[in-house]
Amino acid sequence: MKITSVNNDLIKETAKLLRSKYRDESGLFLVEGMKGIEEAIDAKLEIVHLFVQQNLPPHLNPLPLGEEIICEVTEPILAKISDAKTPPKAVAVVKQPKYKWSEKFKKVVLLEGIKDPGNLGTILRSASAFGIDALVLYGDTVDLYNPKCVRSTVGNLWKIPVFKMSDLSIFANYERIATLPKGVNGVTVIPLKSYKPTEKILVMFGSEADGLSEELKNFATKNITIEMGANVESLNLSVSASIIMYELFNK
Amino acid sequence: MKITSVNNDLIKETAKLLRSKYRDESGLFLVEGMKGIEEAIDAKLEIVHLFVQQNLPPHLNPLPLGEEIICEVTEPILAKISDAKTPPKAVAVVKQPKYKWSEKFKKVVLLEGIKDPGNLGTILRSASAFGIDALVLYGDTVDLYNPKCVRSTVGNLWKIPVFKMSDLSIFANYERIATLPKGVNGVTVIPLKSYKPTEKILVMFGSEADGLSEELKNFATKNITIEMGANVESLNLSVSASIIMYELFNK
Repeated sequence: MKITSVNNDLIKETAKLLRSKYRDESGLFLVEGMKGIEEAIDAKLEIVHLFVQQNLPPHLNPLPLGEEIICEVTEPILAKISDAKTPPKAVAVVKQPKYKWSEKFKKVVLLEGIKDPGNLGTILRSASAFGIDALVLYGDTVDLYNPKCVRSTVGNLWKIPVFKMSDLSIFANYERIATLPKGVNGVTVIPLKSYKPTEKILVMFGSEADGLSEELKNFATKNITIEMGANVESLNLSVSASIIMYELFNK
Repeated sequence: MKITSVNNDLIKETAKLLRSKYRDESGLFLVEGMKGIEEAIDAKLEIVHLFVQQNLPPHLNPLPLGEEIICEVTEPILAKISDAKTPPKAVAVVKQPKYKWSEKFKKVVLLEGIKDPGNLGTILRSASAFGIDALVLYGDTVDLYNPKCVRSTVGNLWKIPVFKMSDLSIFANYERIATLPKGVNGVTVIPLKSYKPTEKILVMFGSEADGLSEELKNFATKNITIEMGANVESLNLSVSASIIMYELFNK
């Protein structure tokens, strides 16, 4: 199939997936670039449509996709269905994977109110690298399927199950770690290197602007902090989360 | 002083500092937001002009700056002299600090060909937190005084001396570490946790897209890598650099 008009109905429907409302309604999301798309196919995600630039290079041909799924399009069309500065050579419409919670999840990371899609994507990438079992989004967070978040994961979005939760009672028997930027008055905070992780652990990170809420600080059974010089207030969120995941889980 | 026109000459001159060419020529750069500006003043950087939104809140008054430096301006003016999505309440024109190389620098980080200003700023922020002595920019890198880089340091830009170098002979007697994303055929790579840092150390990171050049790989005396699962190819550059700095230097 070939499409050359940016006003084609399928293209207009696809462009709607740049907005979270339509991603939620349809259960679909966009993956940009051949590398990410190949990773999605390898991971057995369901590809609904694949839009590739006209005259696709020969190495793309052996993709295990039916002809009815692949659609040759023009550069302006690719620009319309992507919000990247440089439009990608290919964009796929992919079904959002469904995950089921398991009793076996022992290394769980919770992000509260995370707002920057780049941070969320980067944390997912690190979480895949360091063997996290599951990621929990809590509170008002950026959409996991935001295109900038998908790009920042660099093909690692679907390697870890992600759950949006509003009730955390499932973690009653976990060690629940609050990560705090610095020592806080009257609160015992363990330096990261001195903390020995237990078997079932939930590590909680607060938002970029506000840190952890009082609710989650009270929910915590332990507090840890990254040792650092007194002249710096805090680290970038994706950096803090990655250092802590590396230190606790990468054994 | 008050300025209300976006076509005022001083405003036009200031807006030029959004481009690296004019920053190089003038030796000036822009700091956005009161927090960063206060940090710059604390660090004894020279403030040439301070543009603040009209009706500045009372807590801004006690800034130790002469009246001739402070200038009340309108929101459109602040938007013109910033490239942030949300214009800041204040923008300062600041003299670029001059640094002198010292024999005492023992913990040095080198970034080769780094392109993303957000990565450079985030690495500087982590480098300040973990007690790095100096940062070296090598090859074709993003400008340190790029406004997005300045923002990403969150007030830590000037806490570490940064040197642009094209000759690395100064590091002849340093342990020179190449950081590699994964094990490479025929090359001995030490896992990060197994490496014991020596007294004088240069840690080298390659660019986001290409990693370290052959030149710097050959210049290295040791190779290290961050231990990670086989299912992930690499980490975000600012994440890798921060994990390695934390692990090697934060003692």
